[in-house]
Amino acid sequence: VWQFAEHLPIQDRAHIISLGEGNTPVCDLGHNLFLKLESLNPTGSYKDRFASCAVSWMKSEGKTRCLATSSGNTGAALAAYCARASISCTVFLVETTPEGKTAQMLAHGAKLKRVREFGLSSEVTAGVMERLRRRASSGDAALLISAFAFSPAGMEGVKTIAYELAGQLNEIDDIFIPVGGGGLLTAVFQGFRELFRAARLRKMPRIHAVQPEGCATVTGPLERGESLAASVRCTSGISGLQVPNVIDGQSALEAVRAVGGTGQTVSDSAIFAAQEDLSRRGAYCEPAGAAGYAGYLQALKRGIVTKDNRTVCLITGHGFKDPDSIRRIVAGRAVPSVGADDLFGGENECE
Amino acid sequence: VWQFAEHLPIQDRAHIISLGEGNTPVCDLGHNLFLKLESLNPTGSYKDRFASCAVSWMKSEGKTRCLATSSGNTGAALAAYCARASISCTVFLVETTPEGKTAQMLAHGAKLKRVREFGLSSEVTAGVMERLRRRASSGDAALLISAFAFSPAGMEGVKTIAYELAGQLNEIDDIFIPVGGGGLLTAVFQGFRELFRAARLRKMPRIHAVQPEGCATVTGPLERGESLAASVRCTSGISGLQVPNVIDGQSALEAVRAVGGTGQTVSDSAIFAAQEDLSRRGAYCEPAGAAGYAGYLQALKRGIVTKDNRTVCLITGHGFKDPDSIRRIVAGRAVPSVGADDLFGGENECE
Repeated sequence: VWQFAEHLPIQDRAHIISLGEGNTPVCDLGHNLFLKLESLNPTGSYKDRFASCAVSWMKSEGKTRCLATSSGNTGAALAAYCARASISCTVFLVETTPEGKTAQMLAHGAKLKRVREFGLSSEVTAGVMERLRRRASSGDAALLISAFAFSPAGMEGVKTIAYELAGQLNEIDDIFIPVGGGGLLTAVFQGFRELFRAARLRKMPRIHAVQPEGCATVTGPLERGESLAASVRCTSGISGLQVPNVIDGQSALEAVRAVGGTGQTVSDSAIFAAQEDLSRRGAYCEPAGAAGYAGYLQALKRGIVTKDNRTVCLITGHGFKDPDSIRRIVAGRAVPSVGADDLFGGENECE
Repeated sequence: VWQFAEHLPIQDRAHIISLGEGNTPVCDLGHNLFLKLESLNPTGSYKDRFASCAVSWMKSEGKTRCLATSSGNTGAALAAYCARASISCTVFLVETTPEGKTAQMLAHGAKLKRVREFGLSSEVTAGVMERLRRRASSGDAALLISAFAFSPAGMEGVKTIAYELAGQLNEIDDIFIPVGGGGLLTAVFQGFRELFRAARLRKMPRIHAVQPEGCATVTGPLERGESLAASVRCTSGISGLQVPNVIDGQSALEAVRAVGGTGQTVSDSAIFAAQEDLSRRGAYCEPAGAAGYAGYLQALKRGIVTKDNRTVCLITGHGFKDPDSIRRIVAGRAVPSVGADDLFGGENECE
């Protein structure tokens, strides 16, 4: 991330808090399909780019207490970077945050509160964010939410995904991005646009937003040809994409339209199937991390992209993040216990 | 890894199976202490360097069935790379392999067998390896074990850790490396030696081996001033370091002596404490991954290194790999559930 420091809001290196975020690899799956493995950031998701930039910003502003909201990945990232920076961190959690993610936050020393209906009801979600914003409006506290609407300095870090991709792949036709609040897509768009305007990119990629049908605040309007993102009652079970409010959704929607992209609304089960498909191709991600790929598969079927298009799917979070989803994939597959003198007994190992 | 292809045994790019391994970051903890985050490889451990090279070697040899042994990380790596290469993969597991690791292997489609006493008794362990070697001695099968004694072509991939470190840090005084079978330490030594002989490195770092006291096949002899690694009955509970046999231990021992390094035998509880300490500094690793750091802390106390020495600890595996060990760290710390209108009730979030 910080090799692009000239494009980021923190300039004094003494304030930079880094744990080795960014520089994530691109995995070539063949047939012009590439995965950008944001899952290989230090805490297992692209949120580390945000956290590094946001906590560095806190340092530069002399803030010593972090308040945050999260469904898990932002909280884990902020917990780790705050630990590195010796900043206290309290995370207010989406009601359905999986236990694996809370353990990670606790291990880094964060204080956690699970908030009922947060992440499900758009009214409750907006109310929580507003109350936290007031609480952190002065003094030594800062509210960090991974959205341009709340933490623009931190979100600048996320656009480095586009900077890296431009260096890793010489031309990109299409890119599929999971959308929760829309900040990730907005940031990647801004990164590409900065490169394009600086004549460091020959053409803008088409950017496609992907959301589960139970939380289609952006892709629903896009598919219906509407121009406004809209809040919903979230019924999706995909942790990380349960954002019933628009937040950065409007700028995400406009970014997609500006580059001739599409919205892809997919079912939760299509996302789970995409996660399993990726694991059988060697890539390990959480369900939300596979949403971009699920959107790609749908767009392929719909003829929106072909295998001649050089396509990137952002893999946003690691498979380890959501062990329950892995258990679903491997359910019913037992591991037999054998004696050392019976290694090849029973079923043949090569079947 | 493959940017160093000229130093690796596979030359034909058509055979290379890659998932984005290597190029792992170095995290600067201050006071001349640096972590090399091998935990950020695609499957969460340095074994991906081995697996990429070993499975590419299988491709180049026309092998289509992989037999392997593992306590978890090698198996997860091979399962992923075999999935990418469409090679069948059967892993014979150390008896105590944690469930989180078996789920990862199963998700990538590997077949698993848990072998009683394997990894605990040196006799059983040697017998299993020998039986597998015979089974895979001809035809379309290959036995992959992450050790020079069994899979030298694959182990060449691991030396790229040294190549990367030489580029990331201009001079290294000391490096602490967890030792199971000794292959990792041997490979890193070989990498540094190749660079030194090619005059691309001004001096060899001192390499320190770290093992738990319940499995000190290399560090025990080193601390006693003996010249031979020795097999033991494993009583350590640190998954990944439960290797009661010497395997590559002799070459590891000789590498340490060649560069004036030391053996550091540490207790399991010192390793768990080091894991927790790292998590409070923002770095998330499994217990075995923290062993190098535990050895560093001990060497610091013993005056073997000081904070003036530029020191690297290899962090070999991700915190996600062993959720039980994280649960131990966070035990007893509950996550209260609150209503949206009671965010700041009870204890103060800033205490």
